[in-house]
Amino acid sequence: MKLVTVGTVAFDNIETPFGRADKVVGGAATYISLTASYFLEKQGIVSVVGEDFPTTMLETMRKKGIDQAGLEVLKGKESFFWSGRYHYDMNTRDTLETRLNVLLDLDPKLNEEYRSAEYVMLGNLDPVVQAKVLDQVESPALVVMDTMNFWMDSAMEKLKEVIKRVDILTINDSEARQLSGEHSLVKAAHVIMEMGPKHLVVKKGEHGALLFNKNRVFFAPALPLDEVVDPTGAGDTFAGGFIGYLARSGDHSFNNMKRAIIVGSAMASFCCEKFGVERMLELKQEEIDLRIQQFVDLVDFDIKLVEG
Amino acid sequence: MKLVTVGTVAFDNIETPFGRADKVVGGAATYISLTASYFLEKQGIVSVVGEDFPTTMLETMRKKGIDQAGLEVLKGKESFFWSGRYHYDMNTRDTLETRLNVLLDLDPKLNEEYRSAEYVMLGNLDPVVQAKVLDQVESPALVVMDTMNFWMDSAMEKLKEVIKRVDILTINDSEARQLSGEHSLVKAAHVIMEMGPKHLVVKKGEHGALLFNKNRVFFAPALPLDEVVDPTGAGDTFAGGFIGYLARSGDHSFNNMKRAIIVGSAMASFCCEKFGVERMLELKQEEIDLRIQQFVDLVDFDIKLVEG
Repeated sequence: MKLVTVGTVAFDNIETPFGRADKVVGGAATYISLTASYFLEKQGIVSVVGEDFPTTMLETMRKKGIDQAGLEVLKGKESFFWSGRYHYDMNTRDTLETRLNVLLDLDPKLNEEYRSAEYVMLGNLDPVVQAKVLDQVESPALVVMDTMNFWMDSAMEKLKEVIKRVDILTINDSEARQLSGEHSLVKAAHVIMEMGPKHLVVKKGEHGALLFNKNRVFFAPALPLDEVVDPTGAGDTFAGGFIGYLARSGDHSFNNMKRAIIVGSAMASFCCEKFGVERMLELKQEEIDLRIQQFVDLVDFDIKLVEG
Repeated sequence: MKLVTVGTVAFDNIETPFGRADKVVGGAATYISLTASYFLEKQGIVSVVGEDFPTTMLETMRKKGIDQAGLEVLKGKESFFWSGRYHYDMNTRDTLETRLNVLLDLDPKLNEEYRSAEYVMLGNLDPVVQAKVLDQVESPALVVMDTMNFWMDSAMEKLKEVIKRVDILTINDSEARQLSGEHSLVKAAHVIMEMGPKHLVVKKGEHGALLFNKNRVFFAPALPLDEVVDPTGAGDTFAGGFIGYLARSGDHSFNNMKRAIIVGSAMASFCCEKFGVERMLELKQEEIDLRIQQFVDLVDFDIKLVEG
């Protein structure tokens, strides 16, 4: 299996200052795998849902090459549910409710095909579960991990054990500050890379994303959008585009990671245009190409250095 | 005169979570003109100071080609004074005290040389004073205006009258939202350009800057810095680099404005490295070239569009 993603497959209630959507399909693994499906013919997900999860959505995902041997469906139980409300800036949000439901039973057992995964995406989840997946994958070429402040508040030591084992960590700017104890993102990045990952991606939502390695830094803008309908899943979509592009190309150079960050940012910009995963189900290749070209144009300039 | 700048020449008290500086030289016209001096041999400022303003600083500015025929020194009076405290994010701040002092007496009278200015920079100031300068300049090639939420709160109608008359407006993202009543920066930009300016620059501090015209958008990143000592004057420094570069080149195309935005961003990154104007007094051409190259590298990527 080229790519295996562990993460939630779930329902979300989303409120924004401009609209709301109730019980739409969401979850990190859903967003990641749907997005990666634009780059990979076949991939697997590791997750758990309840009997309430729509089989039509599972069928849609299957048709997009998302294998579900790693997805448990628990009879008589309910899927993970998250409810949140966005602030007026659409960049910050409050969690209104979290019902773990089936997530309490998630104890991943990977089959042989999954164990041989070349690329592993650890979606935001209990680091103990992320570690269990890592334990079972035999010799991945690249492991990318996403996490959130929730785990820094509640399980920092477990979290750091997993961080130590991954190649690339993706977190947002306030999380980078929290994890490192440094205010400057440059200093924060270097503290975090000392913890294990050779690369760090700092996601800044509508303000773009930074990619660090020990010696270099790259900045990818976010596309200024006419309208942001729902940013839920944008970070997961970014991760799906990022690892999907890397997995397809097989090139882990810094220069190719820069491309992967642009691709991830382009995919995330689509995600924000509609509620839930809707936009990620219907993209055409021409739309993706056009969007990537918009990113090229957005930051394109030529300058001759000022003469002395 | 190539460039005439109106704005404050003043003292600041600055507190950050990491340090403080008392009664350092500041003011919009000071930052703007010092920065523009790296691009122009001669320029003029229109402002007013009290007897307390250090003559050594005025002499330093004069040596950098900053003509002071438009700068009144009022005997027995005190210079404009601002005191502020930055939040932990170093991107937002509270004003602790403002003493207008001599600013109450600022009633600009431009001499013949100033009236023939090709480039006019209206630094953040009472829009009534900005208008008085515009009234006296005969046929400027380009007028750039900076302003702040303070004038939107207290003098919106006067402000809009000036905005109507300028070529380029520079404001920050929350001010763009306030001025337009639109949350999306893309929509906000178009509403504001309907008010008069053909171009809008949206400054986002540590998150970079956007340049809009009717049909195009360009994004310039901010350089991730190891340490931000004091962001005071960064917006003015940006404006000084922007208009200084445009004035020297005489090219007002969108492509050249993109370069000017990068130059402004590079100059602003220096400004944050020390308290007050200190860093803007000592820059070497090689440092500026190197910094601009860092901006080139920061956003440089090549991507082949995904094959269908």
